[in-house]
Amino acid sequence: MPEVKLKSKVMQKNDEIAAVSRERFKKADIFCVNLIGSPGSGKTTLLEAAFRSTPDRARCAVIEGDVKTENDMNRILAAGVPAVQIQTDGACHLNAEQVAGMLDRLPLDEARVLIIENVGNLICPVSYDLGEESRLIVISVAEGQDKPLKYPSAFMSAQVMVVTTADLAPHVDVDIDGLIANARSINPKLEVLVTSARTGQGIDAFSKFLFDRPRR
Amino acid sequence: MPEVKLKSKVMQKNDEIAAVSRERFKKADIFCVNLIGSPGSGKTTLLEAAFRSTPDRARCAVIEGDVKTENDMNRILAAGVPAVQIQTDGACHLNAEQVAGMLDRLPLDEARVLIIENVGNLICPVSYDLGEESRLIVISVAEGQDKPLKYPSAFMSAQVMVVTTADLAPHVDVDIDGLIANARSINPKLEVLVTSARTGQGIDAFSKFLFDRPRR
Repeated sequence: MPEVKLKSKVMQKNDEIAAVSRERFKKADIFCVNLIGSPGSGKTTLLEAAFRSTPDRARCAVIEGDVKTENDMNRILAAGVPAVQIQTDGACHLNAEQVAGMLDRLPLDEARVLIIENVGNLICPVSYDLGEESRLIVISVAEGQDKPLKYPSAFMSAQVMVVTTADLAPHVDVDIDGLIANARSINPKLEVLVTSARTGQGIDAFSKFLFDRPRR
Repeated sequence: MPEVKLKSKVMQKNDEIAAVSRERFKKADIFCVNLIGSPGSGKTTLLEAAFRSTPDRARCAVIEGDVKTENDMNRILAAGVPAVQIQTDGACHLNAEQVAGMLDRLPLDEARVLIIENVGNLICPVSYDLGEESRLIVISVAEGQDKPLKYPSAFMSAQVMVVTTADLAPHVDVDIDGLIANARSINPKLEVLVTSARTGQGIDAFSKFLFDRPRR
């Protein structure tokens, strides 16, 4: 099966580069997170809300991934946080090589947290280790409560699920407890944060998750 | 470049099978549409709303695509329309072979419209012709107005954009006219339908699009 062999060679190279990045983050005491979610799940809006609410943004850096545009990098820069943009030009996920190639373009000497916002996609980014310490699935209430059942790999591979737009629940007939129960039926250990950038719900808890980690 | 060669061989096979399906639909006078959209963009809810509002559902059949679960097939069956489910088990899009393999399991003798609901993903399904006559991009207002700029291939390859959850616009600070302008900056010929399954807005227009086609 040439397809399978080719795939595994690509993955092996990816994982080797990710391991080097992970070691670098560990040595520099940088907490690296990989945000995965659908297009429009509110990943960038979540970051903007968190940065607005804490001076800890000064200890942060962001790598933005998109098929096209530098929109998200510009939004993060406007929030006062160093950011670079990877445009995949058609590819459906970031890979470890793209991320590693960006590290020297960020002021990582001053950073304690590196956030990688992946391409909007609940499937393809799951297979690609980027060297992160923690993987977050970001899901909007508007997406509906059955998404963990329909895209189980994403929820299985993550440590944390961040539910966004909690304020929309009454407008879309989605039961947030049901969404969480579905996610935990796939991954019982999943940590859950329920947020709304609009009302501020859960934003402090998200900032705490990012910044209040015991030093190694 | 073995990757490129392999890819093009896969695509060539896909396109050949799609062409056979397209010819079959043409001979049988079946209007086949391919619905592409993000997870939670409201593809199934749009179909449910359309089927509820018109007896023309009796002339319809649906192929559902998902990574996992038969949830969507069951929702369509409950709406009184014949449906089958393809579970891709990890794959990020439907292909023409999967679709062709389902055709004899649907009552196509009685159908005038065949709807294929693709896997929730704004990137990967774009490259795979399924034999459809018309490709629809389904996008929820909640996804934000810059999505056509960030995922241009999807909007370039479609004939129609169906905007869903129009009722959410005031709750998410999204300007629907701005979303449409962004989509038309990518594809000036794009036909646009603005809908809300909750208020019923635009559902009749969507049903008309599906069912009121001149016979060949």
